[in-house]
Amino acid sequence: MKAIIPNLQNNSSAPLYLQLYHYMKTAILDGSILPMEKLPSLRGLSQSLDLSLTTIELAYNQLLVEGYIYSKPQSGYFVNKISAGMGSVRKDEGADFQKPVRLPEADPFSDFEKNEYFDVSCFDFVKWKKCINQVLTEYSHLLLREGDSQGEMALRHEISKYVYQSRGVTCTPDQIVIGAGTQQIMGQLCTILIKMGMKHVTVEEPGYLPVRNIFRDRDFAITSVPVGKEGISISRLPANISSAVYVSPSNQFPTGYVMPIGKRYELLGWAMKNDSIIIEDDYDSELRYFGKPIPSLQGLDHNQRVVYLGSFSTTLFPSIKISYMVLPPNMAAIFDPIRGDYTQTCSKTEQLTLAIYMSKGLYQTNIKKLRTLYSQKLQTVLSVLSKWGADFIRPVNSSSGINMLISVRSKKSSARLCQEADELGISTLPVTTFTGAAAESTATLIFNYNQIPIDRIEAALRGLIEKWKHDA
Amino acid sequence: MKAIIPNLQNNSSAPLYLQLYHYMKTAILDGSILPMEKLPSLRGLSQSLDLSLTTIELAYNQLLVEGYIYSKPQSGYFVNKISAGMGSVRKDEGADFQKPVRLPEADPFSDFEKNEYFDVSCFDFVKWKKCINQVLTEYSHLLLREGDSQGEMALRHEISKYVYQSRGVTCTPDQIVIGAGTQQIMGQLCTILIKMGMKHVTVEEPGYLPVRNIFRDRDFAITSVPVGKEGISISRLPANISSAVYVSPSNQFPTGYVMPIGKRYELLGWAMKNDSIIIEDDYDSELRYFGKPIPSLQGLDHNQRVVYLGSFSTTLFPSIKISYMVLPPNMAAIFDPIRGDYTQTCSKTEQLTLAIYMSKGLYQTNIKKLRTLYSQKLQTVLSVLSKWGADFIRPVNSSSGINMLISVRSKKSSARLCQEADELGISTLPVTTFTGAAAESTATLIFNYNQIPIDRIEAALRGLIEKWKHDA
Repeated sequence: MKAIIPNLQNNSSAPLYLQLYHYMKTAILDGSILPMEKLPSLRGLSQSLDLSLTTIELAYNQLLVEGYIYSKPQSGYFVNKISAGMGSVRKDEGADFQKPVRLPEADPFSDFEKNEYFDVSCFDFVKWKKCINQVLTEYSHLLLREGDSQGEMALRHEISKYVYQSRGVTCTPDQIVIGAGTQQIMGQLCTILIKMGMKHVTVEEPGYLPVRNIFRDRDFAITSVPVGKEGISISRLPANISSAVYVSPSNQFPTGYVMPIGKRYELLGWAMKNDSIIIEDDYDSELRYFGKPIPSLQGLDHNQRVVYLGSFSTTLFPSIKISYMVLPPNMAAIFDPIRGDYTQTCSKTEQLTLAIYMSKGLYQTNIKKLRTLYSQKLQTVLSVLSKWGADFIRPVNSSSGINMLISVRSKKSSARLCQEADELGISTLPVTTFTGAAAESTATLIFNYNQIPIDRIEAALRGLIEKWKHDA
Repeated sequence: MKAIIPNLQNNSSAPLYLQLYHYMKTAILDGSILPMEKLPSLRGLSQSLDLSLTTIELAYNQLLVEGYIYSKPQSGYFVNKISAGMGSVRKDEGADFQKPVRLPEADPFSDFEKNEYFDVSCFDFVKWKKCINQVLTEYSHLLLREGDSQGEMALRHEISKYVYQSRGVTCTPDQIVIGAGTQQIMGQLCTILIKMGMKHVTVEEPGYLPVRNIFRDRDFAITSVPVGKEGISISRLPANISSAVYVSPSNQFPTGYVMPIGKRYELLGWAMKNDSIIIEDDYDSELRYFGKPIPSLQGLDHNQRVVYLGSFSTTLFPSIKISYMVLPPNMAAIFDPIRGDYTQTCSKTEQLTLAIYMSKGLYQTNIKKLRTLYSQKLQTVLSVLSKWGADFIRPVNSSSGINMLISVRSKKSSARLCQEADELGISTLPVTTFTGAAAESTATLIFNYNQIPIDRIEAALRGLIEKWKHDA
């Protein structure tokens, strides 16, 4: 064995034990110290190198824990046989991670600067901040535990009160499951449906694509059924098999169509007759602009046929990821024994914040404010469109929600129209991405008008009309 | 048709249009007004009831939108045929959701009161609160947009710097995918593996169960391979098929075993030879108590064979759900076109907060503090155990991490032992839940000592030893 004579630097930034460890590792890797060789004893090396026993111990410990050496009781330390892949050891593996990694030159906060419209009047972050600070001050010890896999009880309690008052949904907090977004919730729902023996789902066409991705990932057979002015075509739903149908009856996405009461009873009848389940996505029905909300299917159902889905993204702020489902009692019973299999994805801090926000009545106040604001925006959009774009832009549906469908007569493709809107900071989405239909001479787009501050809508839209008109 | 003579109350809290709507809906439902019947015109009813035109319009609009009536252009309003399920209409459906729903009597914030240990010295929420308030003040407009489906660029940038410096993991922010917890991340990884044609995974036994649930849900064939003192038994990994293996080499869960360097090269060699992927879960390797961290497999790999997983739950606070994976460039390229299929689950507020927290160096400072604190706790636990419980409690592994395995000689079942600990507010977990092995006269438990404040460890443990000793 080569003598262990490391060239240690007392004035180096690396501690002595690390220098020694490094020296010995290199010696082992380059064969200067051979496998199975016995190393000097701790005390022996401490004396020969004039280093403290602790320094030697730390270096040996590190070599030990990384597997370069091993210890035999009563015998001492020996070099390990390290066979595979030794030729490919990089010089920079090990302790020297100080070399800066190459990173993109751009400022990582640069996406903070995008040329987009933001309507900061949509949400009062000052009140939200007060609630979040209350959680971080008064309840911070609770954050030292993982969240409830089903969602925080305090929030489920508030939700059960709220959905009853606003949507006629009857449930206890035990029937509610909270998750970070509809996709997440649907993943858990898939597990329950599979346990019930269901592997077939019907979705709306056009409809909400992210939900389909989850069904696809879980190997469900998926049927698409067209949506008409009264919602999904019930006569085309599968009969004689137990299946699930995913619908958004109160504000169909993206058409905005509303399923009338008679159709709702018909749909419930279909579910009863075929031992099937209706998944009712009620995602922003609170933002209807006239009359009171239409009763939910869940509230009409007496036979445990409806799973109700709700979300806070459109009524608080878009980046908050808090969604929930209300399971019928029999499905909640199926979920109960497996709930521990899934960790909670939704921020506990934000769940507790929302529970406080709702219990103070701030959520309800915000919804009222949003309904007024968005209906004013809608009126503005409609009047600007009819004034400046009536000849080639037609609103398709505009009774509720935070966006509207528009039909644009143009030689340009949907993708091109959306790109041109994007260049002006205006958010649109081609409906073809939802239906998969080919582009025609008339494009149907989802127009997210709610992102534009009300006093800038006219100028923004006129700019868009001018751009789209060109070559239209 | 029955005459429309509603008994409207001017002094009622319900507006007149709602009273009228309700009256007419009831008449339609109980058959007083028959399907297909023509309703009075707006103007006619306005005159006959001496109500404003707006009141009539609002009532009709609501009936219309709920599908009780329909309108024919130039003809007027007609009652719809509402057949299915009419007998089961509840009296309380519709607008009268004011009846309070029955809720459990218990205070929903009652789980704030559990008799558990909390060590509030583990995390400085004051500094965290400052960062979160900076996000809510300076960057609140960013929260008006949904988060990046791959994770916020600002955080991915910080993570790429951090994992290089601390773990030798080499990557660009584009290779990083952020999600709310390891389960969530694994779901996306499953999709990538399936696209690569892999449907077989090997997991450690004992190992981390929540990850297995995800593989099971996605219909992977799952093989369990036992863990020894050098980690997973490589000779028992599947050969001649392209598969994935999920390992925690730097701090195996729950044994705490560390895979030595030679074994790491051997594992990389296995992956190369069999065109397979190693999923390296490095979940709390930062909390090693001596020496420097062991190089990650990702840092040793030159052949795009390793997916690296990290998490912030153990180094910040347990309820924060921010995890990430580092994909090799070829797998990042597979993920790129499908990243939009999945919405981001992780709170954008908390991602941006963490980016600021890391960029200020607070994260690194906190880890240093935790390492000192937890190693002191570990020493305390070991000395208390050897002093008071040496005859029947034996620490199995205790070199790193935030918990330790203990072996308890007892006639009681693991479940019983854990329940007794729980009654004292001490968190333990039977390892049988991970292995599925039957209980023996010696139980192996995971002991989460880090939750107990250091000055209460001795008293807490002595109480536990007394309780367990009885009938042991």
